Amino acid sequence: MVIDQLAVIGATGAVGQIVLRLLAERQFPAKRVRLFASERSAGKSIRFRDQDVTVEPLRVESFRGIDVCIASTPDDVARDCLRGIAEQGTIVVDESGAWRMAADVPLVVPEVNPEAIRGHRGLIASPNCSTTQMVVCLKPLHDAARIRRVVVSTYQAASGAGIGGQTDLEQGTRALLDGRPYNYSAFVHPLALNLIPQIGSAKHEGYTSEEMKMVWETHKILGDDSIRVCPTCIRVPVTNCHSESILVETERKLSVPQVRDIFGAAAGITVVDDLAANRYPMPRDCTNQDDVFVGRIREDLSSDCGVTFWCVSDNLRKGAATNAVQIAELLVRARTAV
Amino acid sequence: MVIDQLAVIGATGAVGQIVLRLLAERQFPAKRVRLFASERSAGKSIRFRDQDVTVEPLRVESFRGIDVCIASTPDDVARDCLRGIAEQGTIVVDESGAWRMAADVPLVVPEVNPEAIRGHRGLIASPNCSTTQMVVCLKPLHDAARIRRVVVSTYQAASGAGIGGQTDLEQGTRALLDGRPYNYSAFVHPLALNLIPQIGSAKHEGYTSEEMKMVWETHKILGDDSIRVCPTCIRVPVTNCHSESILVETERKLSVPQVRDIFGAAAGITVVDDLAANRYPMPRDCTNQDDVFVGRIREDLSSDCGVTFWCVSDNLRKGAATNAVQIAELLVRARTAV
Repeated sequence: MVIDQLAVIGATGAVGQIVLRLLAERQFPAKRVRLFASERSAGKSIRFRDQDVTVEPLRVESFRGIDVCIASTPDDVARDCLRGIAEQGTIVVDESGAWRMAADVPLVVPEVNPEAIRGHRGLIASPNCSTTQMVVCLKPLHDAARIRRVVVSTYQAASGAGIGGQTDLEQGTRALLDGRPYNYSAFVHPLALNLIPQIGSAKHEGYTSEEMKMVWETHKILGDDSIRVCPTCIRVPVTNCHSESILVETERKLSVPQVRDIFGAAAGITVVDDLAANRYPMPRDCTNQDDVFVGRIREDLSSDCGVTFWCVSDNLRKGAATNAVQIAELLVRARTAV
Repeated sequence: MVIDQLAVIGATGAVGQIVLRLLAERQFPAKRVRLFASERSAGKSIRFRDQDVTVEPLRVESFRGIDVCIASTPDDVARDCLRGIAEQGTIVVDESGAWRMAADVPLVVPEVNPEAIRGHRGLIASPNCSTTQMVVCLKPLHDAARIRRVVVSTYQAASGAGIGGQTDLEQGTRALLDGRPYNYSAFVHPLALNLIPQIGSAKHEGYTSEEMKMVWETHKILGDDSIRVCPTCIRVPVTNCHSESILVETERKLSVPQVRDIFGAAAGITVVDDLAANRYPMPRDCTNQDDVFVGRIREDLSSDCGVTFWCVSDNLRKGAATNAVQIAELLVRARTAV
């Protein structure tokens, strides 16, 4: 089936640009693709599928007749506009944090809980980047042996803070190496050759908003509030791709070969795991890839039913654009099925 | 008391240079300080305490009459030379990994197990940098509530690989930003704007040598093999200072205020912990400091008796040079006591 009109909101942003590239690459079945952005970017022309498309200003009334829309906007824009657009009949896939925890909004990772889209009432949310790559790994382990506990420390790239974050890292690093000052706009502290142990704002008992997303979104996506999650989210001076050191405790013991087999058979996961040959996932190798890459799989030395591993994924792709496009593809397939 | 002769082996290396600076700053009580290095560096002149000191080639027989020596060398050099030097009567403080696990060699962090130096037979080892800063934090928690389990993910700086590591990171980053190729010498993969999830070699069931040091050395220093430790060691593109995301489970529950008080009262720890004000330890702020810095202290959301925190320390100072100089100071004080 082919839909008539697909819209992309935030088409000029870091994620929006990748959404457009993916729609073209994956030959998304829409007769027409319309692009929206803030007033500031409206009027710009963007090349898409060999055509110049003019970016329209984001106004709710413009969405009449649009079947599906993929929105990559700041939380406040999503909060103000997306419900209204959905109420007019457009199915909205939202990449922001605005609607993820709303009871009537499914939070979907297609490899993990595709069935959740059935319950949508016009709005479907894509999870936070650090959650998405983690739950892709957790799901097959949970199915196999029931996860009881997750301890995760992240190594998150500058691109998670958008184009401004990438610019900050590049310009800030050049300035530091040249001994010049640089004023960061996307980060509260200098990121060049440094680490910032805060992503988001103070949220809950000393945890940041980014960390609590990894707890609450994981519960919602896996449909299991009993899984205990302890996250630590750290910004690292890496351009793109988030990495995570993940420890999982399961109810039934899984051996390392079993875990490797489970990951190997799971949708959306590529295993790169040969320490003796210096092979494991690294941000520079995973950028522009859609999969979640896993390596350094080993038994947890600190418990009897644990496994620990290293997980890297392109946060702009699987962590945002790819996941949203996959949800939109699910929607089109669901229509076909009806 | 003042000793006659102190020697510094590896005086031209990254750690050796800091050892010299610390000896001068802390007015180490030695009448004469002699400097040793490999044949390649011998003959060089190094300014120390307003004098030019000529670097001597490392030969065991040259150490007769030297009371104490601080050695910062590769493991193989330490393995070949240091036992012989100790057998001639010099007390050797070794920063390498060669002798740490030998039964007759105390492994000492002065804030943690100063009493262990009593048993020495000429050789005393200083722990691996990633272990040292962690056990400084673990010791007061272990005393207060008995630690049962530690899960740690590290964020280790380029300087841990010596001057070559720092050069690699700086030159590699410049080259990457300028679009030029660069051949790394200290790392098996490019480190610029990247992460390398391997430090050391494959050692034990998928864990690296660096990771197993954090297990075995922690057991030896705390004198308790029953503490279960699960480490993940990652190299990050940071010039200097190792950071660690540490989760600790204790036998008796400790509240966050209790943990903050315990750290606040502990020797060698500075607490920097005010998330709402964006204050926490970061590598750029901790470089050239001797303390271990702790922040982001919070209750473990994944267990009933856990606490998690973020720990940063200058790996060349407390992780190496400072700890070794502190051990040498302990030795001098012990002589005075006799």
